[in-house]
Amino acid sequence: MTTWGESHGEALGVVIDGCPAGLPLSDGDIQIELDRRRPGQSALTSQRKEPDKIAILSGVFEGKTLGTPISLMVENADVISKSYEDIKDTYRPGHADFTYDEKYGVRDYRGGGRASARETVGRVAAGAIAKKILALEGVRTTGFVRQVGDIVAEEVDYDQIEKNPVRCPDAKKACEMARLIEKVRSEGDSIGGVVEVVTSGLPTGLGDPVFHKLDADLAASLMSIGGIRGFEVGMGFEVARRRGSEANDVMYMDDDGRLRFRTNNAGGLLGGISNGEDLVVRIAVKPTSSISKTQETVDRQGSPKELQVKGRHDPCLCPRAVPIAEAMVNLVLVDHLLISRLSRIDSLGSG
Amino acid sequence: MTTWGESHGEALGVVIDGCPAGLPLSDGDIQIELDRRRPGQSALTSQRKEPDKIAILSGVFEGKTLGTPISLMVENADVISKSYEDIKDTYRPGHADFTYDEKYGVRDYRGGGRASARETVGRVAAGAIAKKILALEGVRTTGFVRQVGDIVAEEVDYDQIEKNPVRCPDAKKACEMARLIEKVRSEGDSIGGVVEVVTSGLPTGLGDPVFHKLDADLAASLMSIGGIRGFEVGMGFEVARRRGSEANDVMYMDDDGRLRFRTNNAGGLLGGISNGEDLVVRIAVKPTSSISKTQETVDRQGSPKELQVKGRHDPCLCPRAVPIAEAMVNLVLVDHLLISRLSRIDSLGSG
Amino acid sequence: MTTWGESHGEALGVVIDGCPAGLPLSDGDIQIELDRRRPGQSALTSQRKEPDKIAILSGVFEGKTLGTPISLMVENADVISKSYEDIKDTYRPGHADFTYDEKYGVRDYRGGGRASARETVGRVAAGAIAKKILALEGVRTTGFVRQVGDIVAEEVDYDQIEKNPVRCPDAKKACEMARLIEKVRSEGDSIGGVVEVVTSGLPTGLGDPVFHKLDADLAASLMSIGGIRGFEVGMGFEVARRRGSEANDVMYMDDDGRLRFRTNNAGGLLGGISNGEDLVVRIAVKPTSSISKTQETVDRQGSPKELQVKGRHDPCLCPRAVPIAEAMVNLVLVDHLLISRLSRIDSLGSG
Amino acid sequence: MTTWGESHGEALGVVIDGCPAGLPLSDGDIQIELDRRRPGQSALTSQRKEPDKIAILSGVFEGKTLGTPISLMVENADVISKSYEDIKDTYRPGHADFTYDEKYGVRDYRGGGRASARETVGRVAAGAIAKKILALEGVRTTGFVRQVGDIVAEEVDYDQIEKNPVRCPDAKKACEMARLIEKVRSEGDSIGGVVEVVTSGLPTGLGDPVFHKLDADLAASLMSIGGIRGFEVGMGFEVARRRGSEANDVMYMDDDGRLRFRTNNAGGLLGGISNGEDLVVRIAVKPTSSISKTQETVDRQGSPKELQVKGRHDPCLCPRAVPIAEAMVNLVLVDHLLISRLSRIDSLGSG
Repeated sequence: MTTWGESHGEALGVVIDGCPAGLPLSDGDIQIELDRRRPGQSALTSQRKEPDKIAILSGVFEGKTLGTPISLMVENADVISKSYEDIKDTYRPGHADFTYDEKYGVRDYRGGGRASARETVGRVAAGAIAKKILALEGVRTTGFVRQVGDIVAEEVDYDQIEKNPVRCPDAKKACEMARLIEKVRSEGDSIGGVVEVVTSGLPTGLGDPVFHKLDADLAASLMSIGGIRGFEVGMGFEVARRRGSEANDVMYMDDDGRLRFRTNNAGGLLGGISNGEDLVVRIAVKPTSSISKTQETVDRQGSPKELQVKGRHDPCLCPRAVPIAEAMVNLVLVDHLLISRLSRIDSLGSG
Repeated sequence: MTTWGESHGEALGVVIDGCPAGLPLSDGDIQIELDRRRPGQSALTSQRKEPDKIAILSGVFEGKTLGTPISLMVENADVISKSYEDIKDTYRPGHADFTYDEKYGVRDYRGGGRASARETVGRVAAGAIAKKILALEGVRTTGFVRQVGDIVAEEVDYDQIEKNPVRCPDAKKACEMARLIEKVRSEGDSIGGVVEVVTSGLPTGLGDPVFHKLDADLAASLMSIGGIRGFEVGMGFEVARRRGSEANDVMYMDDDGRLRFRTNNAGGLLGGISNGEDLVVRIAVKPTSSISKTQETVDRQGSPKELQVKGRHDPCLCPRAVPIAEAMVNLVLVDHLLISRLSRIDSLGSG
Repeated sequence: MTTWGESHGEALGVVIDGCPAGLPLSDGDIQIELDRRRPGQSALTSQRKEPDKIAILSGVFEGKTLGTPISLMVENADVISKSYEDIKDTYRPGHADFTYDEKYGVRDYRGGGRASARETVGRVAAGAIAKKILALEGVRTTGFVRQVGDIVAEEVDYDQIEKNPVRCPDAKKACEMARLIEKVRSEGDSIGGVVEVVTSGLPTGLGDPVFHKLDADLAASLMSIGGIRGFEVGMGFEVARRRGSEANDVMYMDDDGRLRFRTNNAGGLLGGISNGEDLVVRIAVKPTSSISKTQETVDRQGSPKELQVKGRHDPCLCPRAVPIAEAMVNLVLVDHLLISRLSRIDSLGSG
Repeated sequence: MTTWGESHGEALGVVIDGCPAGLPLSDGDIQIELDRRRPGQSALTSQRKEPDKIAILSGVFEGKTLGTPISLMVENADVISKSYEDIKDTYRPGHADFTYDEKYGVRDYRGGGRASARETVGRVAAGAIAKKILALEGVRTTGFVRQVGDIVAEEVDYDQIEKNPVRCPDAKKACEMARLIEKVRSEGDSIGGVVEVVTSGLPTGLGDPVFHKLDADLAASLMSIGGIRGFEVGMGFEVARRRGSEANDVMYMDDDGRLRFRTNNAGGLLGGISNGEDLVVRIAVKPTSSISKTQETVDRQGSPKELQVKGRHDPCLCPRAVPIAEAMVNLVLVDHLLISRLSRIDSLGSG
């Protein structure tokens, strides 16, 4: 997978190489996921109006994948570049303006350019294809907002997730989260949170020690999303406080003769390889850097500036991070699902 | 970098391809890091006696690297395979025995085989070379134990780190941690913790958006170490509770005319690219899975078993995880340092 | 570099990741090379009318590269898919119809789909960028037709190449070649040839033993073009007949104090690393498979068929293969030029 | 696969990552191939005495592969480094001494160091494992010497190959070749040739367009062997002289209902994908650079020198190139065989 595109360029897109041939695929399969990522879905998100309409440019013929590279593109529609002119020489706090200048010596300052969250359009589009392949194997990934500020979801009812604008699986906490988000927005500020992603139906044996353990690849994939500050699997940082006798998951044989674990502290992995239990990962999402509150900063010459970031920004990144995180998890899983077919000599004769 | 070797096989090693030519390198440069990783250093670590003596088999000539692959090997000396015979068909809780069997259909059951922490010998050896290259550029990485159980280091005095067996930079907390570790060991149990790694002197501009952001690569690298359950950078999971106005780091120009940040909540990165501040990452280390307490489990056929893991195991993995984590950070940094030379057309004329 | 697109799909394109920032780049830089590859240039080439107009979709801002992925696209205009309907179930001799069906179970039969020579549009576009970077370093690649049928160019005058439709550097032989090509076309047949590519101004030290020797990478790159059956460097297959005392190139110091070679049998390489002499490679180009002569073949069910391939095909692939081969050589060279900056520790301080 | 080691260093070796688990593997499987590569086999080869005894250091347990990296090592025994001291500052004609110095600034001058043909020990060892996997699928690769000087084998009788020291499948031509090799050796010179490699039993569908066509990967693999100046597949450079109506292979259905080709001009590939016919490739092998005849050259300072290369060198590289070429072909094929399992969605359910 290769993504391309700047926030306010001509278009953004992704090329997916290595998708198996024969998978039924339509625009609709991809559009449905892009619509979950799109701004303007609810009062809690940015009001930037991007239709984000997907075009499949190659790799699909008569409704099926060809096995050749799939090129997907979304044109940029609602581009108001003019509004960025006044900040082209000022470094926005929390943004990558300074580091892009340092690294490349040049930068597309319009809307964050390549560093914009808009870059994830291509990821979500690619993830929609991964999701379809995984579904064929009975693998299903569900993301949701576990925490916003100090409010933590306790109930997890998947049916609730898409029913509230926060994408929180706990209806009661969802209301509290929505109120908190509204409050920080009204104060010209933003708030962080935690997104959790759970995958069920995963076969055992996915993950490639020692450098491509499933959790290592998931960490890289999720940490590559903008604004993510932490990753954990299963019990996560809580393990620091625990003893081995508490943290080890006890095995047993279930009634179907399948080896299972009584607890899932490990989050579905042992030694970086899937163990058949639900895969559970979480990411820490920072509060949106673009806030309308006045902030101190400097310009490219280092002169002090005061800045109020205008534009239409999400007060909390979490709700829209859910489909992105799902996509990144699915992309890693489909890769590992494919290559796991090659780990034993006795399974090669079947191809 | 490619590592190889099973815990109780002939030897373990690593091949490093792509190390620049002309770097002075001796056995001693590598041995010093291996000695920090070695078991039997203190009362707090496993008493397994492995001299872990490094041999440089290729890539170095007359004390300098040749630019060709560097092959490093450590022979396995203190191998008591017999003691593992009785558990060859029993799945140890918290270990990868089951998942290796599921994935590969075959497993070297002696001491965990490839899934053993002993695999990290090669990583530490390679990391020692990365450290030397980074030192030439004034980059220095320091790891330490931030937390064991509920005890959290508050002072950070680098001089203290190697003076106590916990590798904690807070002398007072180090004593408490040591007592806790002794206690859980005497109970036949183990305890988790948090290791922090700080890199200073890093130039700006390291990290390759969007899939090889520096934090993404660091996460993959550190999560690939056995027994790690979480990764965070800068403020980490704490961002979930914060507002944008708190989390954004304010920029200013210092007296030397260099752009700096008044705080370092971002942990030295913006948009996945180093910003010139200290790089700060932390990993959650699970409590050792091998404990002498009796645990329930199953054998390969699924029959219930009771197991007391014999052998000589660390009651807390953190002290020995410090040099491993440093090595993994240094290996990522040296890669990015090298390729960052290629990010601008105007710097190419110099070669 | 990732190319995508089927011959008769929506569009074709390429994404180039890793191009250094700050390179001046315009549509015109790329269009000029595409125009050399385009059908319909002369009476000797296919009369298919493709404007092949390039669009730069990302990675360039205000006339300079950003260091981010560059996405280039060419829309398919002159698509007459209908004419392919009658051969959708018949395997054209010399084409990849059968093997695509065997590999993928599905195939875009329109104009060869992914296996069409039209796929090289993306390569030529990417090569135009490589050419610009190489020019900054004084490196210049020139391709030409060395042989068509039994006619072999003897004079090499670069000024002649673009003056004749064959792209032959020997004006006299160019006429003979053109006559031969016309003759085979009038017979409903096609003819093969040899394309040679010479690069001058290449610094020493490019190439990465042992698996990425410069000639190994060039071979892979050039053999990946459709219809190429052989690759050679320097003296090539002629070495089979020679003695060591003839084949070895003798070194001397020239008047500028530079070490040079009196002959260039090795074609500019020693041990897979550039030696400062001209890099000389040649490829064997097969006769076009699509001919209007009646041929025997089978359909998907294996029933015998007689086939006359309609459509507008080049009677000799060589003239249009020249810019493609140049592009592939330049793409390999620019990669090696960049990474060669990292081969010595003492050159790192300059970045 | 990663190889390591200098000609006169401690040892040479290879690490193979990604070999499926469960493959029976012993030292003997590998040793048999190394013995075919070894010097001192016959009067026609170098008399350097290297036992080249293989050690399997990891990745194999109780006679089967574990799915973990396999580390193979050969210690250097018959090392007479002293004899190279006098040429440490002189550039041997035809060798990579100069280019290694240019690239790396430093060089192990003993026996060519990394640029020595001795580096292929690791390749042949790895190839022996590939051969075992391919044999499970009924795939068999046979290499032989097709040409030495002007003498070309006409008969191809596989049973003859290992019966003569040239490894020529034409008994009569083998005698002529042997006489020619003896003659050039007695004159202090060397001679080139052509090695051909044929693979039978290959399934259809191997090869990954557009950049990893099977012939592209084979070209890279074979051209990466030292001393190779050309690569061709099927009809090779002969296509330059042919018409499409001659070069296209006609398809038919055989009595078993399998689609076949009446000729094999394409050498077993269409569009870079295997078509079920024999895969046929050839490489041009240069005459050995090290000859005892006096040659002109320069030293590192550019001063003219006369040089007679001492030591024990093969007068013709071809006989020993046969097992090396076979290994390189097998390594490419096994990679493609594995990944070809992943090219269709309908074959994934089987894993």
